[in-house]
Amino acid sequence: MEMTNSPIRLARRAAQMNSSAIREILKLTERPGVISLAGGLPAPEGFPVEALREATDRVMRDAPREALQYAASEGYGPLREWIAEHLRARGQAADASQVLITTGSQQALDLVGKVLLDPGSRVAVEAPTYLGALQAFSPAEPTFVAVARDSDGPVPERLHEVGDARFLYIQPNFQNPGGHCIGSARRAALVDAARSHGLPLVEDNPYGELWFDTPPPQAMSAQWLDGSIYLGSFSKVLAPGLRVGYLVAPASVYGKLLQAKQAADLHTPSLNQRVVFEAVKNGLLDRHLPAVRAAYRLRRDAMQEALARHLPAGCKWDRPSGGMFFWVELPPDCDAGMLLAKAVERGIAYVPGAAFYFEHPKKNCLRLSFATVSPEQIAASIATLADLLAQATIGSSACLPDHLPDHFPEAA
Amino acid sequence: MEMTNSPIRLARRAAQMNSSAIREILKLTERPGVISLAGGLPAPEGFPVEALREATDRVMRDAPREALQYAASEGYGPLREWIAEHLRARGQAADASQVLITTGSQQALDLVGKVLLDPGSRVAVEAPTYLGALQAFSPAEPTFVAVARDSDGPVPERLHEVGDARFLYIQPNFQNPGGHCIGSARRAALVDAARSHGLPLVEDNPYGELWFDTPPPQAMSAQWLDGSIYLGSFSKVLAPGLRVGYLVAPASVYGKLLQAKQAADLHTPSLNQRVVFEAVKNGLLDRHLPAVRAAYRLRRDAMQEALARHLPAGCKWDRPSGGMFFWVELPPDCDAGMLLAKAVERGIAYVPGAAFYFEHPKKNCLRLSFATVSPEQIAASIATLADLLAQATIGSSACLPDHLPDHFPEAA
Repeated sequence: MEMTNSPIRLARRAAQMNSSAIREILKLTERPGVISLAGGLPAPEGFPVEALREATDRVMRDAPREALQYAASEGYGPLREWIAEHLRARGQAADASQVLITTGSQQALDLVGKVLLDPGSRVAVEAPTYLGALQAFSPAEPTFVAVARDSDGPVPERLHEVGDARFLYIQPNFQNPGGHCIGSARRAALVDAARSHGLPLVEDNPYGELWFDTPPPQAMSAQWLDGSIYLGSFSKVLAPGLRVGYLVAPASVYGKLLQAKQAADLHTPSLNQRVVFEAVKNGLLDRHLPAVRAAYRLRRDAMQEALARHLPAGCKWDRPSGGMFFWVELPPDCDAGMLLAKAVERGIAYVPGAAFYFEHPKKNCLRLSFATVSPEQIAASIATLADLLAQATIGSSACLPDHLPDHFPEAA
Repeated sequence: MEMTNSPIRLARRAAQMNSSAIREILKLTERPGVISLAGGLPAPEGFPVEALREATDRVMRDAPREALQYAASEGYGPLREWIAEHLRARGQAADASQVLITTGSQQALDLVGKVLLDPGSRVAVEAPTYLGALQAFSPAEPTFVAVARDSDGPVPERLHEVGDARFLYIQPNFQNPGGHCIGSARRAALVDAARSHGLPLVEDNPYGELWFDTPPPQAMSAQWLDGSIYLGSFSKVLAPGLRVGYLVAPASVYGKLLQAKQAADLHTPSLNQRVVFEAVKNGLLDRHLPAVRAAYRLRRDAMQEALARHLPAGCKWDRPSGGMFFWVELPPDCDAGMLLAKAVERGIAYVPGAAFYFEHPKKNCLRLSFATVSPEQIAASIATLADLLAQATIGSSACLPDHLPDHFPEAA
């Protein structure tokens, strides 16, 4: 593909990066008229635009030179204080000195990979897990291992199977892509098991505030401060385009994460940190989040209803109690990746579940986001999906990639 | 130092990160009353605050949801177009499709390290070189090698000595810390030599627009598009707190850099990219930069005059023709690191030159920034520095670490 006269040689890790077939198909979803259930984007109509505009005005009026100048790699002091206080109010004993502001929580994953992973280090992950975490850790060239799981998440009694992994990466709240929220008892048992095996936790919590009925249980990190690195973000509660996230780490690794942060981008933009602080300092989130939760709950309900009404027998899913995603398991002989091309032709898109596994992908799963689509669009697109599935299960090869003629024995 | 119960183990690269003694001393420079010639910060009174405030207002009024939403990892299309056009106007054939927006050009260094360097890969650098580049490349665990240099920069005839390095990292314009601008003929000879050895260039240009008399020669990348990755930044021409930089890369590596960018922080904040575009699209830089250049020239002149007036015999420096730094060589038996503690006591600060070497530091050098200090402060602080040097050279151990009593043979 790449014919050039360039003498530039790639690192081993880069040579292994491939543009995925899924990414190529998903580009088609940007076509006008496609209803996309593929994105992980929050609903833009839920952004507190007026409050952020006012916050921006204030910062650019009261402290423009500070907002525009280089700043400390740790982050803006008052924002770090606010975050520590916010976590303490949720039972998580955090000190501002342990809070590192990052350029979105995606960057926190990058820093964790740099500071904790050597080539060949084992990293324990859920399967499926957040694709962006796999991508962020990959430059350190670790070996991923999956933790055994059941319907309530990783199984504590089987945590020892991951061997001497450097850490367990976990999203306990409304996981991307699975949508599941791990229960309180399971969290406690997992923390006990992790502690007894000396397996640190990297707890990623982008969706925790997007609960629909009751708040999720306390963070696992709260029960094991020395052994946990906790990641949070303002992307889903304010706006992702500001790229302001954070991590909270024990003092023993904080200094190294800070040095990695400095080397990565010096600091997160001062303007953005100050805008976030101005927006949240007087309780905006408490006023703003109920409306966001209500809007997402409505869409969750619409998708639950549409799935129950339209999907053929043999499809399985759980109704998520927060977050942005349904995880749907199709009948075993359906390939969600192959079905996607036909879905896009019919004007709908989703992410095939295979994208969220580092190995042994479950091909008959898919992730549906309800965050950015109206209840009407949800109803229409799920009906279309069901129609495609019905056609596929009566014999189309789109859904049956393993049922190839006998004279193609290599193809499976 | 770090006594904890944490089970978190560090990666090899992190275990090697050390908090430097210099960094500890420089923390003292934040004391009120210290005149710091240490910072690499641009002058905040030179920020085009009014234009940036208006640009921010426009973005938050006309496209708030787009500015606050997730966006493409490549960067904001119109800004990429503007950068390509800006470079073409300077004779550098760049297409917008080759421009990747980064979170400051510091992040571009991080991405280059990830995509081009394996553990043990050789990276050719100037010595001294930009400290932040050494830090950004280090997580990939390369081996640094210094290119031989003379008074006009790296010596083309000796470029082969770096062996099979993955690239040469170079700041041709008003280098940090050296202040030197490489001449046109030397650039051409270096590009020829690099091309013939198949040694790619990573050309970093944060200071190019800060020229005082005439613009610097054309970028080296312009003469070898296939073999160069070019890094630019809005930090020194608009404001660093926005954290908007960019790289320009050949198509053969662009896709990999883009994937690394996505994994690092998904994208540079949409708000900031749009603010930069709104600010520059109608020619702000052409109107704004002459004043910045004039202000910096004045300070450069003040520092040149003060150095010539006060520094004792045996000190050497070149007058920089742009940028923010003087590089001063003290008499051979002076240790700028040891002198710093005394300097801070007297209320002035600078960066010892040793910080800018990956090995074999020249201990008798220091970097003086004139960007954020007034001509009066420059005159006063250089007089103090000269006074310290005069005391030191008449026998204080501060400047003479090698001249220790014979019964401390290990101390050197």
